[in-house]
Amino acid sequence: MFKKALFVLIVIFSFNSSYSQNVDSLIINKFFSEALSDYNAYENLRYLCKYIGGRICGSTQADYAVEWVKSVLESMKLDSVYLQELKVRNWKRGEKEYGYIISDLFGKTEVNISALGGAVGTGMMGLKSKVLEVKSFEELSSLGKENVAGKIIFFNQPLNSSYLSTFRAYGEVAKYRVSGAINAAKLGAVGVIVRSLTLSNDYFPHTGIMFYNDSIKKIPAISLSTNDADLLSKYLSIDSKLEFYFRTTCYEDSEKVSYNVIGELKGNKYPDKIILIGAHLDSWDTGEGAHDDGAGIVQCIEVLRLFKKLNITPNHTIRFTAFMDEEVAQRGGRKYLELAKLKSESHLVAIESDAGGTTPIGFSVYAGDSIFNKIKNWSDFFFQYGLYLVVKGGGGVDISFLKELNVPLIGLITDSQRYFDYHHSPNDKFENVNKRELQLGSASLAMLVYLIDKYGW
Amino acid sequence: MFKKALFVLIVIFSFNSSYSQNVDSLIINKFFSEALSDYNAYENLRYLCKYIGGRICGSTQADYAVEWVKSVLESMKLDSVYLQELKVRNWKRGEKEYGYIISDLFGKTEVNISALGGAVGTGMMGLKSKVLEVKSFEELSSLGKENVAGKIIFFNQPLNSSYLSTFRAYGEVAKYRVSGAINAAKLGAVGVIVRSLTLSNDYFPHTGIMFYNDSIKKIPAISLSTNDADLLSKYLSIDSKLEFYFRTTCYEDSEKVSYNVIGELKGNKYPDKIILIGAHLDSWDTGEGAHDDGAGIVQCIEVLRLFKKLNITPNHTIRFTAFMDEEVAQRGGRKYLELAKLKSESHLVAIESDAGGTTPIGFSVYAGDSIFNKIKNWSDFFFQYGLYLVVKGGGGVDISFLKELNVPLIGLITDSQRYFDYHHSPNDKFENVNKRELQLGSASLAMLVYLIDKYGW
Repeated sequence: MFKKALFVLIVIFSFNSSYSQNVDSLIINKFFSEALSDYNAYENLRYLCKYIGGRICGSTQADYAVEWVKSVLESMKLDSVYLQELKVRNWKRGEKEYGYIISDLFGKTEVNISALGGAVGTGMMGLKSKVLEVKSFEELSSLGKENVAGKIIFFNQPLNSSYLSTFRAYGEVAKYRVSGAINAAKLGAVGVIVRSLTLSNDYFPHTGIMFYNDSIKKIPAISLSTNDADLLSKYLSIDSKLEFYFRTTCYEDSEKVSYNVIGELKGNKYPDKIILIGAHLDSWDTGEGAHDDGAGIVQCIEVLRLFKKLNITPNHTIRFTAFMDEEVAQRGGRKYLELAKLKSESHLVAIESDAGGTTPIGFSVYAGDSIFNKIKNWSDFFFQYGLYLVVKGGGGVDISFLKELNVPLIGLITDSQRYFDYHHSPNDKFENVNKRELQLGSASLAMLVYLIDKYGW
Repeated sequence: MFKKALFVLIVIFSFNSSYSQNVDSLIINKFFSEALSDYNAYENLRYLCKYIGGRICGSTQADYAVEWVKSVLESMKLDSVYLQELKVRNWKRGEKEYGYIISDLFGKTEVNISALGGAVGTGMMGLKSKVLEVKSFEELSSLGKENVAGKIIFFNQPLNSSYLSTFRAYGEVAKYRVSGAINAAKLGAVGVIVRSLTLSNDYFPHTGIMFYNDSIKKIPAISLSTNDADLLSKYLSIDSKLEFYFRTTCYEDSEKVSYNVIGELKGNKYPDKIILIGAHLDSWDTGEGAHDDGAGIVQCIEVLRLFKKLNITPNHTIRFTAFMDEEVAQRGGRKYLELAKLKSESHLVAIESDAGGTTPIGFSVYAGDSIFNKIKNWSDFFFQYGLYLVVKGGGGVDISFLKELNVPLIGLITDSQRYFDYHHSPNDKFENVNKRELQLGSASLAMLVYLIDKYGW
C-alpha cells in the first residue's frame, strides 16, 4: 500500500513538474517569438537615438528623454508611472573640440579628440605643449617631476586584445581615463591625452568620466582616437620635440533637477515585493547612446510590453526604472536607494541591462550560493536561447547601490566583441544595433523575470 | 601490494591526463590570444574584399582570387601549394538591373532589384506586365493558368522572424528563389520577382542561385529589396492593375576553366591521413563576399598560420582547400571528391567555415555517434571560448560531397542574427565584419583541428 501510494505520488509529482516545465517552456518561447516578430522596442530605440540623441545628465536631451520615457510608459496603461526627483551634475562640453600635432618634421596634423567628461577646459586660446608618452602610472612616476612638469602627458596603453571579454580589457586600462589627470598634475603636467578605450582602430575619440582631486591642480584632459594615438606615438618616436595643441571649452555648470522614471506592473500576490529591472537613460553626448544604454532602456520597456501582451499578471510587482545619470555621478542609483530605504521597500531582485544591445549570452549574479544555484538550475531554459553563462559577478552600476539592502543583483551578459567599437563614441548610434540581437536581450530579461516571479527564491 | 600499485597507477594516470589537459588548454589559449592580437586574417579579408571584390565563378575577379590565395599560401612556406583544375559555369549579370512600378494611382516608382543567379535576361527592351502576388507555391497553383498566364509572379513570403536561427528561416523560403521561375512558368507566367531573403528591412536586393527545368520555358527572375517588396505589396492592394517593369541583361557565357586552391601542412606521423579545412572562394558579385565566404577563407588560412606560429607540427596532414564555385553549381566540391577518389585519399575529417564571420557558437557534426560523442567530450574546451553548441547537422556545402567517402563532416556554427542582413547582397562588405568575431572563428577552427589531430577518433 505504501509502495503504491509512493508510486502514485511520484507519478503525480512528475506529471505536475513536467506539466509546469511545459507551461514555462511555452511561455518563454512566446516571449522570444513575440520579441523577434515585433518592432516596438527597435522603433523606441530609433526614437531615443534619432529624435532625442545623446543625453548626458543636465542636458536638454536628458530632459526630453525623461519626458519621452514617461509618455511611453503612460501609453502602455501600466499600474503606475512616476518620477523620482534628484539633482545631477551639469557638465557641458562647450564647442566642438579642436586639436593638432605640430612638428618641424611633419608639419601640422589635425587629430580627432574629445574632452573627457567632467574635465576643465583649456580656455579659448587652447593649450600647446610638448608631449610625454607613457604606458602606465608606474612609468609616469619613474619619469619624475623634472621630465613631466609643463608637458602634456599622453597615456597610450592599448586595451589587451588577447582577452576574450572586452570588458576585462577595458577594466584594466580605464584608470588612465578616470584618474590620469590627477596622476599627471601631481608631477606638474599641464594636460592629459588618453588613448581611446577601444579595441577598434578608427578615428572616433571615446569620451567617459574622469575625476579630479580637490587638492591637486585641475588640468584639461582629452581622449584621442586610436588611429591618431598610433600616429602621435610614431611621430613622437621620430620627433620628440613636437608639440600638441588642443582647445576644449567644457565647464561645470550649476546642478540641475532631473529624474529617474519608473513604471510598474503591480503584483497580484505580493504587490510589496519588487522585481526591479533597470537601465540608464542618460548617455554620453557625442554619440546617440544606442548600445550604452538606449538598448537597455528599450529592452526593459519591452519586458513590460511582453508581460502585458501575453496577459501575464505577475505575482510580484515588476518595476522598471530608467535611471538618470549613470555616466557622471550615479545620482539616479543613489537616489533610488535613498528612497527605497525611506519607504522601507522590499526587493526580491534587481536586474540591469547595461552591456549593449548585442546577442545576450547569459547572466551575471551577485547573490549568495542558494540564490545563485537556483538561477543556475534554470540553465536549461536559458541555454535553448543561447544564454549559456550563469556566473557570479556584478549586476550593473545603477543597481549596485542596492547591495546595502542585500538585494540579489543580476546583470545581462552580452557578446562583448563589438561593444567597445561603439562605447562612449560618435559611433554609438542606432544603425549599429541589430534588431534581432536587441530583442533577444528583451526576451532574455522577460524569461528571467518570469521565472523569478513564478518560483521566487 | 596490489592496492598500492593500483594507487600509483591511478596517480600516474590522473597526472598524465591532467598534465595533458593542461598542455591542451595552454595551446588552445595561445590560439585564441594570438588570433585576437593579430591583424593578418583581417587584412587578408580587406584585400580579398576591397582589391578583388565580388567574385562569382567565371569572373575575372574569381581568377584574381585564385591567384591571390595561391600567392598567400606560397608566402607562408607550407609543405605544398597546388591547384585543382575544374570547369565552371559562366553566368554574367550584364548591365546594372533597372526596375520600376508604374501605376495610374501612384505614378512611376523605381525599385531596387537584382537578377537572380543563373537567370535569363529580359533582353534590352525589358519586360513589363501586371503583377500577381503570392505567398506560396500552393497559392500559385490554386490560382491556375487563367490567372497566372502573361503575368509577373511576385513571391512575397517573408522569412519567419520568430525563429532563433535565421538559417532555419532562410531554409524555409529559399525555394521561392531557387524554383520560383519553374513553378511560375509552368502556369504561363512571363517573369518572377522574389522578395529578398533577409530579415532586414532595407533597400538591398539579395541575389542567389535559381534553376530552370529544360522542359519548361525559361523566364527572367529577379529579387526585390524587402522595403520595395512591402511597397509593391501595398500598391497592389490598392491598385491591382499596376504594372512592373524590369530589364536584366544577364546571360550564360561559355564555361571556363577555374581552380580549387590547396595548401598543406604535412603530417608528421600520418601524412596520408587528411584533416581537411575548407571554405569557398567564389562569392556573389553584387557585394564583396565578406561574410559569404571571404571570412571562411581567411579563417582557414589563419589556422595554418596559427599552427606555424606556435610551431606545432601536426600528426596528420592539414589541408586547406579554397573551393571554387559554391554559389552556382558546386563544381569545386564535386571536383574535390572526384580527385580524392581517383587518388584514393583518406580523410580523417572535413571541416568547413561557411556561416559568416560573426561570433562562433559551436560545431555541427555529421558523423556516427562514436565520433559525435568524442567531439562532444571536448565541450569543456569549446565552452571556455563561447562555443556552447555541439549538435548533429551538416558540415557545409563544399565538403558535403565527401559523404560518399564516409568522411565525418563538421561545420562552424556562428551567431546567425545578422547574417542575412548581408548574405548575397551589396551589404556583404568588409566593413560589416568585426575583426574579433572573425578571429574567434579562426581560433575555434584551430582548436578543433588541434584536438582532432592530437586525439583522432
